Amino acid sequence: MADEVILLDFWPSPFGMRIRIALAEKGIKYEYKEEDLLSNKSPLLLEMNPVHKKVPVLIHNGKPIAESLIAVQYIDEVWNDKSPLLPSDPYQRSQARFWADFVDKKKIYEVAKNLWTKKGEEQEAAKKEFIEIIKLLEQELGDKTYFGGDKLGFVDVAIIPFYTWFKGYEIFGNFNLEKECPKFIAWAKRCIKIESVSKSLPDQDKVYDFVVQIRKKMGIE
Amino acid sequence: MADEVILLDFWPSPFGMRIRIALAEKGIKYEYKEEDLLSNKSPLLLEMNPVHKKVPVLIHNGKPIAESLIAVQYIDEVWNDKSPLLPSDPYQRSQARFWADFVDKKKIYEVAKNLWTKKGEEQEAAKKEFIEIIKLLEQELGDKTYFGGDKLGFVDVAIIPFYTWFKGYEIFGNFNLEKECPKFIAWAKRCIKIESVSKSLPDQDKVYDFVVQIRKKMGIE
Repeated sequence: MADEVILLDFWPSPFGMRIRIALAEKGIKYEYKEEDLLSNKSPLLLEMNPVHKKVPVLIHNGKPIAESLIAVQYIDEVWNDKSPLLPSDPYQRSQARFWADFVDKKKIYEVAKNLWTKKGEEQEAAKKEFIEIIKLLEQELGDKTYFGGDKLGFVDVAIIPFYTWFKGYEIFGNFNLEKECPKFIAWAKRCIKIESVSKSLPDQDKVYDFVVQIRKKMGIE
Repeated sequence: MADEVILLDFWPSPFGMRIRIALAEKGIKYEYKEEDLLSNKSPLLLEMNPVHKKVPVLIHNGKPIAESLIAVQYIDEVWNDKSPLLPSDPYQRSQARFWADFVDKKKIYEVAKNLWTKKGEEQEAAKKEFIEIIKLLEQELGDKTYFGGDKLGFVDVAIIPFYTWFKGYEIFGNFNLEKECPKFIAWAKRCIKIESVSKSLPDQDKVYDFVVQIRKKMGIE
């Protein structure tokens, strides 16, 4: 029996993008089901992720896997014959998990949201915190081509989706990330040249338009 | 060369307890180094966990692994010949990761802290949230002996340390968890009969005294 793989997702979700990249890296065909989070959550989403009620959810042969980093690890373990994402050495694997977890523990998504929804001090604090996070990641990257070394790995997959939001962050946050963190941006540009990444991510202009639209709905001038 | 294993920990830390149980399950001898978090963090801690600057940190042959769930997974992978904690099936493994992650995402530690540091509405809100979390866990446990099935597993190791704090939660939160969640408490009582668990955890009275002491330092009547 062929595998049935479904992804419940919302196109600007950086968490969903992680799963899209992992599936693309493995060459897995799947059915993409768009959730309209701005109006109603589908009964399928609520059934498949009753605990967190959030996208993305990967559904493999009827069984749901929620939480993006957990789903990416699952994909890496099930389809382990192609493009390993986590290193095979346990210590290296622990460090890859540490840095992917770091991005989520630091709530990069929420911090960055304050760049385009807040003003004044709150916005400045978010900018400072955001740049600190990116600089720490840049330091971890060091002189490697990717966080995964010579090849795209788990940490790259965890971080690169946020790059699609950077135009919105920079314009509304009024700063230039390439000036602040040139090595990080060079890494991002390398990543988006990879086919599995480029075909899984929306472009920055499209996400920017989405940010503009949300700001309007929120009544932000 | 024999393995050198060091644990930087603080005795009432439920996160440290996770690592202690995992090491005990595997029968690994290690050097326990107590950090005095109430005064100063040691230079070793800051060197080994420069990003989060927190206990616990496992140090294996000089190399640090921070973040308790990541360290437990590391232990399970390195010493994989004895007492497997994560299931071997990838789907079951993803679900074990989901529930361990759930406990940390829901910030059970921070929610519970409001039980013994707050009063009135804030305390009531914390109580409601805390009981909801435990009830969800109880539902996931179902009729199984342990979250891991017939044997202690990853999710059990992630959750049982919080049980050592329950006396403090119940006395200052003024509620009875056994009444609210009898199956969960029955599970906890089964767990603490296991030697690897009992020898890794302080008893509830000792943690309760610690809570009393902290409340005094915070000036809570």
